[in-house]
Amino acid sequence: MIVTLAGGVGAARFLKGLCLIQPPEDLIAVINTADDTVLHGLHISPDIDTVTYSLAGVDNPETGWGLIGETWKVMESLNSLGGVTWFQLGDKDLGTHLYRTNRLTDGDSLTTVTSEIASQFKIKTKLLPMTNDKVSTFVTLADSGEEISFQEYFVKLKHSVAVSDIRFDGVKDSRPGPEVIESIISAEKIIIAPSNPLVSIGPILAISEIFSAIQSRRESTVAISPIVGGLALKGPADRLMRELGHEPSVVGVARLYKDFAGTLVIDNIDESHRTAIEALGMRCVVTDTVMSSPTISASLASTVLNVES
Amino acid sequence: MIVTLAGGVGAARFLKGLCLIQPPEDLIAVINTADDTVLHGLHISPDIDTVTYSLAGVDNPETGWGLIGETWKVMESLNSLGGVTWFQLGDKDLGTHLYRTNRLTDGDSLTTVTSEIASQFKIKTKLLPMTNDKVSTFVTLADSGEEISFQEYFVKLKHSVAVSDIRFDGVKDSRPGPEVIESIISAEKIIIAPSNPLVSIGPILAISEIFSAIQSRRESTVAISPIVGGLALKGPADRLMRELGHEPSVVGVARLYKDFAGTLVIDNIDESHRTAIEALGMRCVVTDTVMSSPTISASLASTVLNVES
Repeated sequence: MIVTLAGGVGAARFLKGLCLIQPPEDLIAVINTADDTVLHGLHISPDIDTVTYSLAGVDNPETGWGLIGETWKVMESLNSLGGVTWFQLGDKDLGTHLYRTNRLTDGDSLTTVTSEIASQFKIKTKLLPMTNDKVSTFVTLADSGEEISFQEYFVKLKHSVAVSDIRFDGVKDSRPGPEVIESIISAEKIIIAPSNPLVSIGPILAISEIFSAIQSRRESTVAISPIVGGLALKGPADRLMRELGHEPSVVGVARLYKDFAGTLVIDNIDESHRTAIEALGMRCVVTDTVMSSPTISASLASTVLNVES
Repeated sequence: MIVTLAGGVGAARFLKGLCLIQPPEDLIAVINTADDTVLHGLHISPDIDTVTYSLAGVDNPETGWGLIGETWKVMESLNSLGGVTWFQLGDKDLGTHLYRTNRLTDGDSLTTVTSEIASQFKIKTKLLPMTNDKVSTFVTLADSGEEISFQEYFVKLKHSVAVSDIRFDGVKDSRPGPEVIESIISAEKIIIAPSNPLVSIGPILAISEIFSAIQSRRESTVAISPIVGGLALKGPADRLMRELGHEPSVVGVARLYKDFAGTLVIDNIDESHRTAIEALGMRCVVTDTVMSSPTISASLASTVLNVES
């Protein structure tokens, strides 16, 4: 089995590539849930949904979230009532949120419900929430010192504000979700997807048992840098890294990952940083990491799988 | 001010008639909330919504619930996931439920949220939930002795099963909603709409302070029988009355209402029961009560308002 630690879009794209070269049933994704939020009473799991919809081939490639061919009747109605609509929820997407919320209310776990939804979408890859406990990312705004929820930062403020701190509320008391530790311990290879190191991969590794498990598998762990040429391909990873004192480069990523990942995969454009990364004690693999097509995703996945441990 | 105790469709139709002959801002509806339910995490208030949508002229006259011109994208999605869909929620209607749930989560009361929604629908009549406390109707099935929620009985089982008991969970500790008692005490007239006496009007009067207030205004209280010719025009009122030991007739309704309503308005078809009703100590007004058109609703409303107290 191949285990991938996953955030949203970057991870979803990588996993699609991986599914092209490996039997999907041999793959496990351990997915960040610290972006999860309850809005209008509905339990929303953005990263789980992005991975689910992408693997099902029904994701909206333009937005990077939600479903393709969506309609917006509910949001139009909510808007006409003067309701809160900064977090847009499509009609089909809402079906997922209603299903999840209802099943969680029944007392079933996010792991079970995620598996049910994946199964309805005919996904053979195992999608494991990092935890069934409530872990919630908050960010502190640099200007005001105010702490806001991750979705307020990411969606409402379109991550266009400087951040001075990140906190994963609840993480200290959280336990890994079922099968997470066993999967990591027994995996042939562990891949850290090209997701935001601070707010997507960060929360997964902030669960101490998961951190220890990954650390114990350092030589089999291959991380893919989400930073290419000093920039995040999507989202605020580069800015967040700079704001929080990390160099927004593949070297900065290497410093964050070196204790638990034996190998860092970087883009051709960053080849000049190879020596600096190797000096940190990581193997460095240079390839095309910009997944602009399924072929490139598959090729990247193949390169990652071929890393010797 | 005219106060109307209201359930769903019958009350909504009567209130529409009343609005044709009285300034809507002089009307108050005290609405049953014991049918309220939380489904998929969403707070649903069927009677409040029926009255709101009807007074706004956007109700679906065919179903008696929901909005006209609805679409069903969310339910289709939920259904494709194998979710619970016996309680159908249209896309536009869901906007209302998301709005309500979000506002209640903010910590505001159902009274406030109901008023906000009514205001967005340009409704000038004051819509008051009977209580802001959780009161929930349960029915016991005659066959199995199993107790189920009202919506399971009413919607899922289409009220096609015999009932041996009704219980309003939480009603003993419930308090009237804001303005309810003051409205009743100071009203020029109090009207009991032609709603189900047992499961629509029953819960409102099961709140002891409301019962006492209405009882103190007996001479100004006019009830309209929802039973016409021994049958309910809509819903299970006649069967429920029979099953629970009440005569399913205007006389049965009179027996239920005589302690707190001075007058019962019955349909022409039931004129032969006038003497029996008067023998119970109620005034009896005979008129056309089948509100098959707005004109008839307005005429019924006019008759009710003209009852001398």
